[in-house]
Amino acid sequence: MKIRVVENILKANDSLALDNRAYFKSRGIKVVNLIGSPGSGKTSFIIKAAALLSERGLVCGVIEGDIASSIDAEKISSAGIPVVQVNTGGGCHLDAGMVKACLSSLPLDKINILFIENIGNLVCPFGYYLGEDLRITLLSVPEGDDKPLKYPASVLDTDMIIISKTDLEKVCGVRASSIAANARRIKKDVPLFRISARLGTGMAGAVGHLIKFNSTRRPT
Amino acid sequence: MKIRVVENILKANDSLALDNRAYFKSRGIKVVNLIGSPGSGKTSFIIKAAALLSERGLVCGVIEGDIASSIDAEKISSAGIPVVQVNTGGGCHLDAGMVKACLSSLPLDKINILFIENIGNLVCPFGYYLGEDLRITLLSVPEGDDKPLKYPASVLDTDMIIISKTDLEKVCGVRASSIAANARRIKKDVPLFRISARLGTGMAGAVGHLIKFNSTRRPT
Repeated sequence: MKIRVVENILKANDSLALDNRAYFKSRGIKVVNLIGSPGSGKTSFIIKAAALLSERGLVCGVIEGDIASSIDAEKISSAGIPVVQVNTGGGCHLDAGMVKACLSSLPLDKINILFIENIGNLVCPFGYYLGEDLRITLLSVPEGDDKPLKYPASVLDTDMIIISKTDLEKVCGVRASSIAANARRIKKDVPLFRISARLGTGMAGAVGHLIKFNSTRRPT
Repeated sequence: MKIRVVENILKANDSLALDNRAYFKSRGIKVVNLIGSPGSGKTSFIIKAAALLSERGLVCGVIEGDIASSIDAEKISSAGIPVVQVNTGGGCHLDAGMVKACLSSLPLDKINILFIENIGNLVCPFGYYLGEDLRITLLSVPEGDDKPLKYPASVLDTDMIIISKTDLEKVCGVRASSIAANARRIKKDVPLFRISARLGTGMAGAVGHLIKFNSTRRPT
């Protein structure tokens, strides 16, 4: 009975996620779901990426997920990016219903690319499809090079990996190339990009891939 | 109905956790549940702490929780510490039943302090009491200074906070004092320690507190 209830919750989520996907498609909005550990650099990536996309004439919006606070939404808003904050009040992931509930608070007629910053959690968010076109996993250098092996869903259930904070490689004694090699042990052909949002390095390549990429992502 | 099922799961967990607690108490074993984000330094803390405790004549054992792999258990075993690996196969937290199932694989008659390294996750593990005497939250400097505000349970539902990787303060532009100040905004009197496992600084204070501390922790 326990399993059946979980299945029902997931089915209800998938149904709402497909509604979201159809809605986004009808408006020509590309949606990116960003997943990573607490402090892996999701917000910094969004702000830097939005600036690069703006240079190409593309307008971004953000759904900012946090358990509590609006710290990241304020940062994003200060950068001139339309943003709506979702506080889960304890929940460990965003779900499709939360995304749907946000849509009326965003100027969707002006937005080309919508970033959804999930709760900082390298486990639970991978189980919930939100209706996104593209799912990105951020793995930061200070977390160590073994995260793909310890959290295999972070590689298997994503479309693209961004290795962040590469400016900390030497001081942390962690090589981005080792993170990449471990990710390829889990999924050989996963697209991988290395960035330092602080230095601005690697951003153009990651953003270029994001623009081009259209996944065939569906509820699993 | 959904809520009722969740309540039942938690009640079943709490019942097993109280069994664990009674069992540990009868054997005079002190149990420490370590919770933190992926890569926050839980394993490094355990290895350094066990060495210091050994100098005081105290023997440590470890229950090592990971979704997949035995990377950390191998590190711990290489340091000469008895360890048993739990792989949750996707589960985002350890529960009391998993802890109970491990006990026959550890030399409990020799162990004074048992560390349980939870899944790397700053959200879900706080909801599951395992029968521990003491719960420690690790917050690492590279994660940023705002984690106590974004993940309030990591402060409210813990007995002691360890701010780790303080050797990275300058290079990350993050001050341990800011992490501490934000934690105190959530819980004024939470015991706080700053360590660098790499440099060995701060370990004696944290371990001293760990030895002295007896929480009144119970299922919530």
